[in-house]
Amino acid sequence: MPRKTITDVARLAKVSTSSVSNVLNDRSTRMRPETRDRIQQAINKLGYTPNLAARQLKTGYSPFIGLIVPSVADPFFGIFARLVEEAALARGFQVLLGNSDRDTGREQRYAEVLWRSGIRGIIFGSSLIHSTHLESLIDKGMHCIAFNRPHLGNDRYPIDSAGVDNVQATRLITKHLLALGHRRIGFISGPIDPVSRTDRLQGFRVTLQEAAIDPDEELVWDGPADNFGDTSAIELGRQGAHYLLSKAERPTAIIAINDMHAFGVYAGARDLGITIPAELSITGIDNITLADVVEPPLTTVQQPIRDVTRLAVERLISRLEESSIQPPVHVMLSPKLIVRTSTAHYQKNKTL
Amino acid sequence: MPRKTITDVARLAKVSTSSVSNVLNDRSTRMRPETRDRIQQAINKLGYTPNLAARQLKTGYSPFIGLIVPSVADPFFGIFARLVEEAALARGFQVLLGNSDRDTGREQRYAEVLWRSGIRGIIFGSSLIHSTHLESLIDKGMHCIAFNRPHLGNDRYPIDSAGVDNVQATRLITKHLLALGHRRIGFISGPIDPVSRTDRLQGFRVTLQEAAIDPDEELVWDGPADNFGDTSAIELGRQGAHYLLSKAERPTAIIAINDMHAFGVYAGARDLGITIPAELSITGIDNITLADVVEPPLTTVQQPIRDVTRLAVERLISRLEESSIQPPVHVMLSPKLIVRTSTAHYQKNKTL
Repeated sequence: MPRKTITDVARLAKVSTSSVSNVLNDRSTRMRPETRDRIQQAINKLGYTPNLAARQLKTGYSPFIGLIVPSVADPFFGIFARLVEEAALARGFQVLLGNSDRDTGREQRYAEVLWRSGIRGIIFGSSLIHSTHLESLIDKGMHCIAFNRPHLGNDRYPIDSAGVDNVQATRLITKHLLALGHRRIGFISGPIDPVSRTDRLQGFRVTLQEAAIDPDEELVWDGPADNFGDTSAIELGRQGAHYLLSKAERPTAIIAINDMHAFGVYAGARDLGITIPAELSITGIDNITLADVVEPPLTTVQQPIRDVTRLAVERLISRLEESSIQPPVHVMLSPKLIVRTSTAHYQKNKTL
Repeated sequence: MPRKTITDVARLAKVSTSSVSNVLNDRSTRMRPETRDRIQQAINKLGYTPNLAARQLKTGYSPFIGLIVPSVADPFFGIFARLVEEAALARGFQVLLGNSDRDTGREQRYAEVLWRSGIRGIIFGSSLIHSTHLESLIDKGMHCIAFNRPHLGNDRYPIDSAGVDNVQATRLITKHLLALGHRRIGFISGPIDPVSRTDRLQGFRVTLQEAAIDPDEELVWDGPADNFGDTSAIELGRQGAHYLLSKAERPTAIIAINDMHAFGVYAGARDLGITIPAELSITGIDNITLADVVEPPLTTVQQPIRDVTRLAVERLISRLEESSIQPPVHVMLSPKLIVRTSTAHYQKNKTL
């Protein structure tokens, strides 16, 4: 099928190409609703998407894509944003960024302002729970790619995703701790709402069950929202450590939901005079640069985010260039365990 | 003087208000250049700026401001971005973000896409060297606020600034180290180009001279560009530490340009088996959350960035609401020394 042009849309809708252009560029407020609807229907029927490269050549505008993450103050998303940018710049695109705090209202307002600026593609760094708030823009031609969001089956619109297998991440960690002889293993996290976190908790539980250990709900601590990125991720880890390590029978190992929470567990253990790893093994997830700098260096899981971000950017640019609507694509990469010295064999005499 | 309206501009330029609106909203490509120039001159003559709040009420758009930082992967700018956002949200504004890598071409492209989205105010998180690349947008009505950039005297346009006294930051640190008996003090940084870094180096040198110590250029290490935020800031600190600590007569204390570089110095010292603080005192600047979590906790300087970011946002919103062009305002706040245990008295027997 040859690529549909704006002329094809105009002909089908029986309007001028500039009217189609007005709808595409959100300048249709003075248009009669029937006309706007007819143009939109023609766009949908033909599967027309504007040729971004051509439009940018014509207007002289630099090409941009959007990126919405929960918070750039979280070092994982800081690096994630830079890797998205690196992949985008390699293809000649710059990136405009927004922090959403996982709030759908803010996601929607960002998507709208990005649309007005001429941006037609957005990568979501958080695992979108649903896409209802984005439907009207997707309808008009906005393309969305979500990180860590396998198809949930309830979308009206196709949203591609690229992510890391989070169940596998905690399976690797839990197996590592079981092999070291740990049986009482704690789990510390902020609110376990996003898909990525429920997957991590599930990987932990399933692996314990496979080893014939009944998961002890008393050892799972999920704190309040870490709305302020870096500060409270560490603070939450510290609070969770105080709670779990003050129990009569305390855990001998703690799995933190990510490296920043793990650093908070370090601080919490230090507050209580508990030494790592002799008295307590600690693990993170993410393998941010600091994981190798803290003392002792942190055992963690490396997410292949360079590959994930590159795939997400490539996918988005393909969508921008496609002439018709294709089914969504979901990519899931495997994480890798990085063993350092924050984990050690369980020593019965030391821990009680 | 009563606030000028779009009608005043239209009357002076002898055009319709919708023509003025087209110029303000960058839709003047089909207008005759003479007409556009006449409208722009009328806007300048009357000092007219569109009333953002009124325009947003009318269009139903959410109000946004822009923020451009060198890199959100640098935890300092991650937190800086969140504080700008916190202050902006308190006033009903959302923030769109871009990473510039201190590249003026990228700053310009961001400013242009923000303008097209309807944004009329930008905060720059880096100390802008000059503003030439922003002049055409400032001309049209874009407002800019720069962090850490006292008036440089060569601007055609007024750019407000809000910042921290960086000379004072390294004066506080150097005095602290001198009081502990250190005389051979190293200085580790990435490229010393931005105003903030030249100020920090100057504060160090001047304070040594005041103590009758001749600054030893051999002890100043400035590495290559840390284009990739967090990763290479740590890596640079580590490289610098390897270099300075391998000298025949090595320094007894090292001042790192910021906390991330300091963490790299920790790693470099550990690589060489040098203990902190017994054999080497280390300091940072920024007081990011991790400064209190690393072992030993880092002596550093707290920048009052919550106050600076709030002032910058207030100033920008005032500019957006002003009816005429006012002279630029420059605010400079004082930093505060935070003494922890990464610094100790110089012990002659241990260091050589």
